Amino acid sequence: MKFLLILSVILIFGYQSFAVDSVTASVREYRRANERRLLQDFLSLLSIPNVASDRENIRRNAAYLMEMMRQRGLKPQLLTAPSDENAPPSVYGEWTVRGAEQTIVFYAHYDGQPTDPKQWSGSQPWQPVLRSDALERGGRILSMPKENESVNPEWRVYARSASDDKAGVFAILQAFDALRAVKIQPSVNIKFFFEGEEEASSPHLKELVSRHKNLLKADAWIVCDGPVHQSGRKQVVFGVRGVTTVDLTVYGANRSLHSGHYGNWSPNPALTLAKLLSSMKDDDGNVIVKNWSDDVQPMGDLEKQAMKDAPQYDDQLKKQLGLARADGSNKSYLELIALPSLNINGMISGDVGALARNVVPATANAVLDLRLVKGNDNRRQFEKLKAHIKQQGFYTIDREPTAAERLQYPLIAKLIHRDGGYNAQRTPMDLPVSLSVVKAVQATSEQPVVKMPTLGGSLPLSIINENLNVPTITVPIANYDNNQHAENENIRLQNLWDGIEIFANLMTLEMRK
Amino acid sequence: MKFLLILSVILIFGYQSFAVDSVTASVREYRRANERRLLQDFLSLLSIPNVASDRENIRRNAAYLMEMMRQRGLKPQLLTAPSDENAPPSVYGEWTVRGAEQTIVFYAHYDGQPTDPKQWSGSQPWQPVLRSDALERGGRILSMPKENESVNPEWRVYARSASDDKAGVFAILQAFDALRAVKIQPSVNIKFFFEGEEEASSPHLKELVSRHKNLLKADAWIVCDGPVHQSGRKQVVFGVRGVTTVDLTVYGANRSLHSGHYGNWSPNPALTLAKLLSSMKDDDGNVIVKNWSDDVQPMGDLEKQAMKDAPQYDDQLKKQLGLARADGSNKSYLELIALPSLNINGMISGDVGALARNVVPATANAVLDLRLVKGNDNRRQFEKLKAHIKQQGFYTIDREPTAAERLQYPLIAKLIHRDGGYNAQRTPMDLPVSLSVVKAVQATSEQPVVKMPTLGGSLPLSIINENLNVPTITVPIANYDNNQHAENENIRLQNLWDGIEIFANLMTLEMRK
Repeated sequence: MKFLLILSVILIFGYQSFAVDSVTASVREYRRANERRLLQDFLSLLSIPNVASDRENIRRNAAYLMEMMRQRGLKPQLLTAPSDENAPPSVYGEWTVRGAEQTIVFYAHYDGQPTDPKQWSGSQPWQPVLRSDALERGGRILSMPKENESVNPEWRVYARSASDDKAGVFAILQAFDALRAVKIQPSVNIKFFFEGEEEASSPHLKELVSRHKNLLKADAWIVCDGPVHQSGRKQVVFGVRGVTTVDLTVYGANRSLHSGHYGNWSPNPALTLAKLLSSMKDDDGNVIVKNWSDDVQPMGDLEKQAMKDAPQYDDQLKKQLGLARADGSNKSYLELIALPSLNINGMISGDVGALARNVVPATANAVLDLRLVKGNDNRRQFEKLKAHIKQQGFYTIDREPTAAERLQYPLIAKLIHRDGGYNAQRTPMDLPVSLSVVKAVQATSEQPVVKMPTLGGSLPLSIINENLNVPTITVPIANYDNNQHAENENIRLQNLWDGIEIFANLMTLEMRK
Repeated sequence: MKFLLILSVILIFGYQSFAVDSVTASVREYRRANERRLLQDFLSLLSIPNVASDRENIRRNAAYLMEMMRQRGLKPQLLTAPSDENAPPSVYGEWTVRGAEQTIVFYAHYDGQPTDPKQWSGSQPWQPVLRSDALERGGRILSMPKENESVNPEWRVYARSASDDKAGVFAILQAFDALRAVKIQPSVNIKFFFEGEEEASSPHLKELVSRHKNLLKADAWIVCDGPVHQSGRKQVVFGVRGVTTVDLTVYGANRSLHSGHYGNWSPNPALTLAKLLSSMKDDDGNVIVKNWSDDVQPMGDLEKQAMKDAPQYDDQLKKQLGLARADGSNKSYLELIALPSLNINGMISGDVGALARNVVPATANAVLDLRLVKGNDNRRQFEKLKAHIKQQGFYTIDREPTAAERLQYPLIAKLIHRDGGYNAQRTPMDLPVSLSVVKAVQATSEQPVVKMPTLGGSLPLSIINENLNVPTITVPIANYDNNQHAENENIRLQNLWDGIEIFANLMTLEMRK
């Protein structure tokens, strides 16, 4: 029977099937018996607003996590940076295993992206709801299952941070609970590290890890953030892109003007911005800013092979996202996320919809995120962009223009390089810990695990690597269609359940020296 | 003395001085004696919110005007269009003069542009305040002058519609009051017509005037809207541009995407929109849409001469508005507003500021206003724009794209031609009524009145001309720096006082057959 099952999996999916191990089987049994309680606990965690700039609520989240850790005997403490003790703290806890020689830090972040509640459909960001399926497939809101009702793993929880990244926080803590419940001893000393301002670009992380170097010492950091592979297969990620954000403003007249009296005569900053942004990318979406990719460190052979082995998912992805084309002149998705990007997060001038007025707006503003790959540098990338803008004829400043400057320069751009950016990170795929982590995750899955040299997304892992001299490996758990960073963020329950099994296995991994 | 005064005016300003007439002198005396009351009455009128889409408050404005007319014995009535009796009504009143052979309709509108109260500085749109000067020159909020305090004509009132166009409504009704108070009989029968949805592009005006053709019959319509000349000189305007509005949306993926995971790969609609808008105008701001100005009817000799005689104010204007350059390849302001425009009122994709998120937005949206000149047609101009967008490779629709269309067409543009646009209007400058109006306005001013063939702004006058077969002439009163259509709209008190004198003179004009 088993042979036939494996054979049919190979025939249908074209790859070998794997067997799950005993840790996975035990944890799964425990989870099945406790699903309703787990779900309820997860919804409680999601109901606390968690935008990093909302300091009062961020503190409530931290206090809640402290209490969760206290109940588990994890000796929790709040870690902060010297320069701003009131910034969102990281919540730290630890569990020492007699005889264990190695230590792993499990990282997740408990803050979420800012969001406009008006953009959500049928529910609110911090009033989590259960849906019968994804919203775009008609998922309807469900009431909580009663004592005798089963929990369907295809149900989803909709809330800010349901996936990014309270799912990580939750899966890590529940994996620890599960191991204790089934009486399996972790193989390593465990440190828990939950950051509170990752979505604000981790402005204090560098300071904070420098201050607590001793406490945070470990043989590896395992980071839970981001989605599994688009194919649904679990993945282990060895690198992430860096990121840095630029705020760009261009100017028209010193006040909004009546578009009848001044339209055709007064320059319109929306058009000025449109032309400037257009100059940064060609019609295929390739960045054409000079030297943009000059310092990129090419992938090694192992990484190239892993990219080749990964499922090629571009066509399905386009279909699911309703795209007739992708950017990048027919390069593959994996090739493109291995390049530095320039993306418009937002662009505003004047108003549209009911507030639209017959004006020539006074300013136009865009926020750009620059994703960095290995070799790029945060400040250097910003300087390349600034040089490009100067090249287009703009006088560049980092504050509002003076009246004299307005009269002197026909084109003025205010460029703010937002703090807190960081560079890309890549951990070699053949380190012992790399192999151990892949093995542990594989033990939870019948399908082969995808080994990904880099994600498109960003995590502040270069800060960890550089300041603690420790390898970082990312193990994501969220469904890829989780609407991360957007409205209607969600997690599919099966992904949350999988996460518990994955982290239980990582806490019991066989770690070679 | 008088000769010396005239001479010095000629020496300083380079033009001949005029004397004001006895009507002006009497009305001025009346106004001076009643300024505080007039100011208080004006603030009451401004305190009723007046956006056309806010039907409840629009009705309150109409009721308030009905009451003002009733008190003056003007036999008021509300006029509506058959297709939507609940649309903002026009408020009509009349005053018959024994022996008068001619009739003039005085038009103004009581609705105002939509506005975002958050954009206002130190006051709210419908809580009018008095300031000691223009806000940008440090004007501070004043309390209402007491019984023994004088009213400084340089003070300003800040509120939505302070200039556009409740100033017109107010000046017309107060001019009528003033004439009665000083016992001067109007020379013509007077009809009052105050529209309630001009800023929403007068969607029902055509229907409404057709329905009430008999009631609205007249020898001329005199329209109060817009600003006086930038030089501060009073002006009589013989034409206005038409206007029509287009709502343009372009599409990326069917949902917002994480900019890390998808940036570089998923097309960004903000960039798509930027490139599309950029294709519509050259770097000097000239419209380069094919055939854009082909149907423009050139100015006649009289109009060309008037444009030459008008003060050339471009350099001062640029200085005041903080502009180092104007659009239009060195054509003059007056030449440029005599051409059809294409202006971006607003442009939005994703979010900026505190709400900015690391996403690839799902859509980008712009609202464009197309100003039309004599010869252009509303629908034809829209079709030219649509043809241009198709030419850029877009599949154009007037609704959301279907899932199948998204997968078929790499570039999709939703184009909505908002209803209610109208064409340009131009009244010949040598009609008897044209000469009479100039003479009447000149009688209120020591400086020569500017005769303007066309304003840059728009009024639905072609609807009046075409449906009632009557000439329209516009006599604006607002200060040119009134922030019309923008936040911090205001009127300078002297302009309001001038308006009362102007309309009193127009109600007593010598009308040649």
